[in-house]
Amino acid sequence: MGGDEAPLRIVEGGMRALKASGNRFELVLVGRKEEIEKELSIHSTPGMNFSVVDAREVIEMHETPNVALKQKRDSSIVVGMNLHKEGKVDAFISAGNTGAFMAASTLILGRVKGVGRPAVGTPIPTINDACLLIDSGANSDCRPQHIVEFGIMGAIYASEILKKHNPTVGLLNIGEESSKGNELAQAAYPLLEKSGLNFIGNIEGRDILMGKADVVLADGFVGNIVLKFAESVLPVLRSRIRGYASGNLFRTVWAGLMGKTLRKVLKGFSYEAQGGAPLLGVNGISIIGHGGSTAWAVENMVLRAEEMVQHKISQLIENSITKFESSRQLGASQGKA
Amino acid sequence: MGGDEAPLRIVEGGMRALKASGNRFELVLVGRKEEIEKELSIHSTPGMNFSVVDAREVIEMHETPNVALKQKRDSSIVVGMNLHKEGKVDAFISAGNTGAFMAASTLILGRVKGVGRPAVGTPIPTINDACLLIDSGANSDCRPQHIVEFGIMGAIYASEILKKHNPTVGLLNIGEESSKGNELAQAAYPLLEKSGLNFIGNIEGRDILMGKADVVLADGFVGNIVLKFAESVLPVLRSRIRGYASGNLFRTVWAGLMGKTLRKVLKGFSYEAQGGAPLLGVNGISIIGHGGSTAWAVENMVLRAEEMVQHKISQLIENSITKFESSRQLGASQGKA
Repeated sequence: MGGDEAPLRIVEGGMRALKASGNRFELVLVGRKEEIEKELSIHSTPGMNFSVVDAREVIEMHETPNVALKQKRDSSIVVGMNLHKEGKVDAFISAGNTGAFMAASTLILGRVKGVGRPAVGTPIPTINDACLLIDSGANSDCRPQHIVEFGIMGAIYASEILKKHNPTVGLLNIGEESSKGNELAQAAYPLLEKSGLNFIGNIEGRDILMGKADVVLADGFVGNIVLKFAESVLPVLRSRIRGYASGNLFRTVWAGLMGKTLRKVLKGFSYEAQGGAPLLGVNGISIIGHGGSTAWAVENMVLRAEEMVQHKISQLIENSITKFESSRQLGASQGKA
Repeated sequence: MGGDEAPLRIVEGGMRALKASGNRFELVLVGRKEEIEKELSIHSTPGMNFSVVDAREVIEMHETPNVALKQKRDSSIVVGMNLHKEGKVDAFISAGNTGAFMAASTLILGRVKGVGRPAVGTPIPTINDACLLIDSGANSDCRPQHIVEFGIMGAIYASEILKKHNPTVGLLNIGEESSKGNELAQAAYPLLEKSGLNFIGNIEGRDILMGKADVVLADGFVGNIVLKFAESVLPVLRSRIRGYASGNLFRTVWAGLMGKTLRKVLKGFSYEAQGGAPLLGVNGISIIGHGGSTAWAVENMVLRAEEMVQHKISQLIENSITKFESSRQLGASQGKA
């Protein structure tokens, strides 16, 4: 029920994913049954592997997450997350209220053992392919240790899902030297050096799109601001081109042709190709979609969710965090001895 | 002597600015005399109002600012800044080592009375015209009070130089509500509300290019990362278009035509149009240029510097800060009474 065009785009995208996968998994649609069934009626559904779970309430985009979660127990977000918690579904995605979805993920699913702060990892297109920006919005104030956790979780995602061999991890900063940056970055740097990650040091804002690191580490405040800025670039470009063309027939035709090529050139440079952003570090697979998700974006989110289930991402995160923690404790006790 | 193509582009840009102004001011070129004179010899200089001050050393781009400033007393940055301090020039600009230039500005010129932290204000193109992102790199860790100072200084620049009437001031954050964001943003918000500035509340990353605020407030860590990211967008777009065209004659011609239109469409969306970024809050006019500054960028920096001198920006900042401080103290003492 979440997103600007729900449940229309959600149902359409979900069914497209199911078809694309050859009916390989079961799609469970959560929300107001009659509204979902109305949308389903326009898709050819015989033989398709799906079901509908009724949830009468909807958490709107403007609602305060924690209040809404308490008051709307029968919302699609709460009902769906409980299905996941109970093991009735293996992953849960939403294009709805981001704050409510993140809070429900953390509160209902709980955190992976050893993870202090679940974090949002957003795939960002680069001149090569994509990198993962983590944290892109879950944690405004972080401690250095959290940045290392983001690195561990992000490296697993980059390796398993983005198919990066021994992914490089960079710390988003304002200069290359280890002494650069704010207190958090300065304190995180030496921890990252000792983390066992493929840490390549600091990277700057300009290095993100250049694909300098496979995993870009930032606190959720910096990460979210960069992400939102990045998302605004293509719409601004489009609006500029429209402004250039406006009121001139030749230019309108020309801008149309140019727009077509630009779409090809920038293929993949849209959030839709990546679908959504996983909340890493919770006990489950939870993917956050853009409020403006198109059917294509939803399709990609569903397929990505299935891939994350197959790759057992949460289990891998737990293993890595446990391993890291024990080596750290070993290091500390050896240091004492 | 600073910048990738110094003194070639610096001399060329400076002379272009002088010509464009109709010889209205005196241009003082600081650096190795023979190198500057060699460049000058290729420009038509009779009757032009300029002079050369010899400085034998050059602070290279990679040098550590404070060390370089101590060791290279005869560098163009130190010699030029001393000329400004002594009142022999009214403004000083450089495309050289940014850290050294900022440190020299603060150490040699000193801070405007009442200003805790001078800050870099970078004009950022928007769909309308431009906004000022402040601080875009001078202060990695800030206190809430500094953010208010940035607002006061930025509003003066936006009003006097960017010609914005009663400029709007936005706090860069990750949500609209005053409770959003990291500790710094949450603490700065109520101070900004009481500051007397035309504070429009929080703005998000996507609002910058949309021109939602004339002055965008951030600490220098966030500001610098956003700035560097923004600067990378056009080069990445160009590289994508080249990649699309490569090895295909039709596409190469097409991409060439498209590039030409895009340059028109994105006119002003280049840092060169803005020239450079002023360091606001020091006792003087100090403008930091991009290391890759072209002659056009240098020309714009020089003209902008003259404009800042005419508008007495430092004096206006001192007046505003003093006024703000006294109203704050008055408020505090009334609060006690």
